[in-house]
Amino acid sequence: MTADTAIFLTFDALADLSRRILRHHGLGPNQIEAVTRTIVAGERDGCASHGAYRLIVCAATLATGKVIRDADPEVCDSAPGLARVDAGGGYAQLAFERGLPLLVEKAQAAGIAALAINNCVHFAALWPEIEAVTDQGLVALACTPSHAWVAPAGGRKPLFGTNPLAFGWPRPGPYPFVFDFATSAVARGEIELHCRSGRKIPTGWGIDREGNDTTDPAAALAGAMLTFGGHKGSALSAMIELIAGPLIGDMTSAESLTADEGAGSSPIGGELIVAIDPSGFLGDAAAQHMNRAEALFEGITAQGARLPSQRRFAAREQSQERGGVTLARTLHDDLLRLLD
Amino acid sequence: MTADTAIFLTFDALADLSRRILRHHGLGPNQIEAVTRTIVAGERDGCASHGAYRLIVCAATLATGKVIRDADPEVCDSAPGLARVDAGGGYAQLAFERGLPLLVEKAQAAGIAALAINNCVHFAALWPEIEAVTDQGLVALACTPSHAWVAPAGGRKPLFGTNPLAFGWPRPGPYPFVFDFATSAVARGEIELHCRSGRKIPTGWGIDREGNDTTDPAAALAGAMLTFGGHKGSALSAMIELIAGPLIGDMTSAESLTADEGAGSSPIGGELIVAIDPSGFLGDAAAQHMNRAEALFEGITAQGARLPSQRRFAAREQSQERGGVTLARTLHDDLLRLLD
Repeated sequence: MTADTAIFLTFDALADLSRRILRHHGLGPNQIEAVTRTIVAGERDGCASHGAYRLIVCAATLATGKVIRDADPEVCDSAPGLARVDAGGGYAQLAFERGLPLLVEKAQAAGIAALAINNCVHFAALWPEIEAVTDQGLVALACTPSHAWVAPAGGRKPLFGTNPLAFGWPRPGPYPFVFDFATSAVARGEIELHCRSGRKIPTGWGIDREGNDTTDPAAALAGAMLTFGGHKGSALSAMIELIAGPLIGDMTSAESLTADEGAGSSPIGGELIVAIDPSGFLGDAAAQHMNRAEALFEGITAQGARLPSQRRFAAREQSQERGGVTLARTLHDDLLRLLD
Repeated sequence: MTADTAIFLTFDALADLSRRILRHHGLGPNQIEAVTRTIVAGERDGCASHGAYRLIVCAATLATGKVIRDADPEVCDSAPGLARVDAGGGYAQLAFERGLPLLVEKAQAAGIAALAINNCVHFAALWPEIEAVTDQGLVALACTPSHAWVAPAGGRKPLFGTNPLAFGWPRPGPYPFVFDFATSAVARGEIELHCRSGRKIPTGWGIDREGNDTTDPAAALAGAMLTFGGHKGSALSAMIELIAGPLIGDMTSAESLTADEGAGSSPIGGELIVAIDPSGFLGDAAAQHMNRAEALFEGITAQGARLPSQRRFAAREQSQERGGVTLARTLHDDLLRLLD
C-alpha cells in the first residue's frame, strides 16, 4: 500500500478511533475499553477480519438492539473448579476480563479449572482469551458456538455454527503456541468475500439448499457450509455445541440464530475456557517437562512446517516495531463514516 | 460368514480364550482381567481392529519385553482437580480402572477434573474410557500420543502419532454421544491392510520418504502418514502431543518411538482424561439443559446424518441379543495358535 491508498495509525490513535466509534453507537464505557483492546490487538496481529474492520460489524450489531450496551458482567463462583460470568448481554470481552482472575486462581489451586461466559455477544477470535491465560503460565482451551450455518457431515441442513476451537501452551519468550480455527471448512466471511467479488468457491466449502456440492458462494450461503475434515470435523463441531452450549446452560448455534430473529446481530450465547496449570501435575519438574515441548516445536519448524499463529506473531512484531498499524484508506474512510 | 467360515463364541467363551492367551504369554492376573474386558467390548461392538484381533498384537508386544507383565498401577492424588496413575509399565486398562473412582470423585467435588495415566502401554481405542466416565453422568474427553508416524502439515517427516481424540456426553438411555477418532487421515492399520492386499491408497493418506504424495501403501509406511483436515488436524495432533505428553510428564510420540528401540511394541506413554460434571455449572437445572442437547442430536439424525458411534452401538445391540460374537474361523485359528 502506498501513502495514497494507506494510512498509518499509532496504536493509541487506533484505540482512540475505536472508542469514538463505539461511543457514537451507544456502547457503555467499560464495554468500549474491553472491545477496543481486542480490536487493536487484532489489527496489530494482521487479522484483517478481526481488527479495525470489526468496528463496522460492531456498529451494525449495536444497531440491531441485540447488545446490552452498558452491560455490567457478574462473576459467580460455581464450584472449586468452575466459575461463571453472566455477561449481561454485552460483549464477551469485558465478561472474560472480569472472570479471568478467578479462572487463574482456581486453576492454580485445583490444577484444572473452567470458566463459562454466559449471555454474551461474540465478534472476535478466541486467541486473545487464550493468550491472556497462557500469559499466566497456564495451558488454555476455548470454544464457542455461533449461528447455525454449517451442516453436520452426512446431512444437508445448517445446524452447527462455525464453532471455533482454540488452544494455547505457554512458552519461554514472548509467544505461546496458539491455534484458533473454525470447525467449518472456512470462515463464513471468506464465502461472503467470494460472493462480493463474483468468484467461485472450491467444492468442500458448502452445499446448496438441495444438499448438492456447489461452487456458487451465494448458493452456499443460502444452503449450508460444510465442516472441515469430514465426519471428524463434524464431531468436533458437535462437541463445541454441547460443551459451550447446554453444559454451561447456554444456547446452541440453532438457538442463537433463532434468538437473532433475523436482526443480523453477531452470535449471542456462551463460551467455555478451560485452564490447566502444568505445575499441578508436575510440581517442580514442570520446567523440565515444558522444555521437552520445545523439542516438539523444533521438530515442526526444523522440517520447514509452520507453527500455528507464526504469521500472526510476525505481523505483531512488525506492528510493534513501527508502533502502529497501516489501514487501507478505503477502510479508514468507512470507519470515519461510522462517526457521521 | 457361514458356519464353515465363522465361529460363534459367547462373551464368556471369548473372555476365557482371551485370558488363556494372555496368561500363556505371561501377563499377570490383574492385567489380564482389565485387558480382557476391553477385548471383549471391542469385539462386541464390531470393532474388528480393537477386538479379538488385538490379542495377536498383545502377544507380539508381550514378546518384545516392553510390557511390565505384572505391573500394579498406583494412584496418586496430585491436586484438588488432578489425579495421576503410574501404570508401572503395564497396559493402560488396569491403570484407568484404578484411577477412575478418584477422577469421578474429583469431578463431582470440583466440577472439573483430569486424570493422567503415566508409563502405560496402549493397544486399544479410547471409547471404553470415555464410556466409563459418561456412565457416571459426566462429560469426558480423552487423548493420547502414539508413535511418531505422522508428518505435521507443511512438513514431510514423521513427528506426531496417530493421536486419537475421544469425547463423550451422557444421554438418557443406554448410549452416550461418543466420538473417538485418530487425528491422522486414517488409522495406520488401514494402510497396512492395503499393503497386505496389494491395493493402492487414496492421496491424502501419506507421503513417501521424499515428501511426495503417494498412492503406494508401502511408500507411505516408510515415509509419513498425514493428518486429517490439513493444518487444523495437524494443530490438534500437536495439542495432543503436548497435553498427553509433557503436560503430564510423559513421552511425546517421537520419544515413545525412540524408547521402542525398533522392538515393534505398542506405543508406550501417557494418556489424559478430563471429566466435567454437568451439575457443577448447572446445579438442579442440569437435566433441563441436557434435554436441549437431545434436540441437537435430533437435529443431526432427522436430516439423515449419523451420530458418531451409531454403527458401533448397533453392533453392540446385535451382539447382546445373540449373547456373543462371531469370529472368522481364520482369525479363531490364529488365536488358537497363540496357545501353542
